[in-house]
Amino acid sequence: MQEIRYLDSVYAGEGIWQRLNEHLELKKYGSIFILTDSNTAVHCLPYLTSKLPKKWNLRQLQIKAGESYKNIESCLQIWEELSSNLADRHSLLINLGGGVVTDLGGFVASTFKRGIDFINIPTSLLAMVDASIGGKNGVDLGVLKNQIGVINEPELVLMDIKFLDTLPPAHKVSGLAEMLKHGLIASESYFNRLLRSHDSSMWLDLIWESVEIKHKIVTEDRSEEGSRKFLNFGHTLGHAIESHYLDKADGEAILHGEAVAIGMILAAYISTRMRSLSEEKRDTIANGILEFFDKRRFSEKDIEAILGLLIYDKKNRGGKILFVLINDFGKPIWDCEVPDAVIRAAFNYYKNL
Amino acid sequence: MQEIRYLDSVYAGEGIWQRLNEHLELKKYGSIFILTDSNTAVHCLPYLTSKLPKKWNLRQLQIKAGESYKNIESCLQIWEELSSNLADRHSLLINLGGGVVTDLGGFVASTFKRGIDFINIPTSLLAMVDASIGGKNGVDLGVLKNQIGVINEPELVLMDIKFLDTLPPAHKVSGLAEMLKHGLIASESYFNRLLRSHDSSMWLDLIWESVEIKHKIVTEDRSEEGSRKFLNFGHTLGHAIESHYLDKADGEAILHGEAVAIGMILAAYISTRMRSLSEEKRDTIANGILEFFDKRRFSEKDIEAILGLLIYDKKNRGGKILFVLINDFGKPIWDCEVPDAVIRAAFNYYKNL
Repeated sequence: MQEIRYLDSVYAGEGIWQRLNEHLELKKYGSIFILTDSNTAVHCLPYLTSKLPKKWNLRQLQIKAGESYKNIESCLQIWEELSSNLADRHSLLINLGGGVVTDLGGFVASTFKRGIDFINIPTSLLAMVDASIGGKNGVDLGVLKNQIGVINEPELVLMDIKFLDTLPPAHKVSGLAEMLKHGLIASESYFNRLLRSHDSSMWLDLIWESVEIKHKIVTEDRSEEGSRKFLNFGHTLGHAIESHYLDKADGEAILHGEAVAIGMILAAYISTRMRSLSEEKRDTIANGILEFFDKRRFSEKDIEAILGLLIYDKKNRGGKILFVLINDFGKPIWDCEVPDAVIRAAFNYYKNL
Repeated sequence: MQEIRYLDSVYAGEGIWQRLNEHLELKKYGSIFILTDSNTAVHCLPYLTSKLPKKWNLRQLQIKAGESYKNIESCLQIWEELSSNLADRHSLLINLGGGVVTDLGGFVASTFKRGIDFINIPTSLLAMVDASIGGKNGVDLGVLKNQIGVINEPELVLMDIKFLDTLPPAHKVSGLAEMLKHGLIASESYFNRLLRSHDSSMWLDLIWESVEIKHKIVTEDRSEEGSRKFLNFGHTLGHAIESHYLDKADGEAILHGEAVAIGMILAAYISTRMRSLSEEKRDTIANGILEFFDKRRFSEKDIEAILGLLIYDKKNRGGKILFVLINDFGKPIWDCEVPDAVIRAAFNYYKNL
């Protein structure tokens, strides 16, 4: 018996490929499409096809790799290819890739002929511990992230940690930011274990703990009216930082996780200033995060541009900037209003770390 | 007390404006946007604003009028305008117009920041009796109709038959096709009343009967796996005919209702050939429909092009052409396979009427 663990439609462990095969046998899809980007087409698709019987006859669709292609133009390309390949409502789309592929592919499937089945196979750590849980999908609108999308659950989410071996180191570390966040908002011991254990035999357990933390939060608050907002810790500034660097030359581009890591350090500082997080824990958090993420320099001009982008953050109501802060590990509070001056001071704290 | 009738979120009668006002009071939206096309901006928006207290401060968004603008480019325009006007998840979009505006606006709202509230105010007969009921929304992909969309219910659908006075006669008649269809698949007496009664005092009752028939069918089968397919009567060929003329010069353009009217005559002929509809009833149906819709000439080339388009119809599974046919009034059957030769013979029957 192959090992498998699952939570609703999310599966991990050796048994996932058998589970996928059973699903395909059961559903008898008229046609099966597989979406990759230009990286996962090379590094992940051969492994996936080796795990499946040849009879399924997967047809490959491909977008260019990178956050800047997570847009409506890429959706149009895939919708048109599905259409010209006679995909119908009994077709399946398998999304094989990082968060860009699973977010975009989930949106394309949810809207093609008003919704076809889709399966997500996340290949990055970030997609496994974050994008795959909670049914959110969508694309960016210009520099504004995830402005267009729906909430719709995939048929299956299948996690194989072998895919992590295909990642460049920076991308692997990028996913750690969301795992650290889960520790910050839900469990101090999980945060500490993440700092300690870099043994690869621990990865599946550590990932699965993140899956469980996120799953618990999103199932308690599907519509994001309440506690789901906790997952936004570090993201208010993180998104603005990511947007700011999205249009820059390649050398300056920033990964989602790196932006969130900085956002969490800034949010920890703000939590000490405006809530009851101790200075000691603030510094533990900041230094823990900096074990994984290099520091980045922000000019005054960068900081002003980032503050300007904040107002577009979709979590904000009526133009107010609302943060998730923490009183302690596992004690988050949502909808905290923060003055610009405190945000500027947070950048100063970060600079002096 | 003003007269009002309702079914779930669909309201008709004089009391609808009071109902809208109550909804706005209750929901306290952060901002309210109203989408029109270039026609309804002139002919319908002043009437709507006269019915609402000035305090609501509606911000107007506008697309160009016509089916050819029911596409992703128009969605992008509206998403970007919503975004630059700082619409957030507590904003409301009111869609004021025919099926193009309500279908497109419903999709834009359902996908903006993963879904904001929307209200449909259909101004065409077609939108009242068809597009407004059942929660479907979406846009076209090239010549292929409604390929991109989701199923999502508006907060309210508000029907005021005064808007029908703003319609050109051809557009008014276009909506009749769907009403006649409801008679064909659900009620012979309703079909006959539609042929007889052209008295404007009857309109609200006739429209409401269509609302009830469609509502009953869609609530029994939300996901369109079964009986909802009956609503596709006349549409398999109707959609292909509509697609065929979508790219043509203005003089040849065809309204949805006219295309469906032709599709229903063809489907009635096929129902006699392949099912048990009597020749007498077939002719009653064809002549009844032709009381409202002028005949159109199809060249051999047109017919071949239309047959070629059929394969893309989203209702078809694995490339097979599946029709809804009827054994009699109120006795529809779905998923009937029809040979090309019988479809060609149907066009011949139509030509000789």
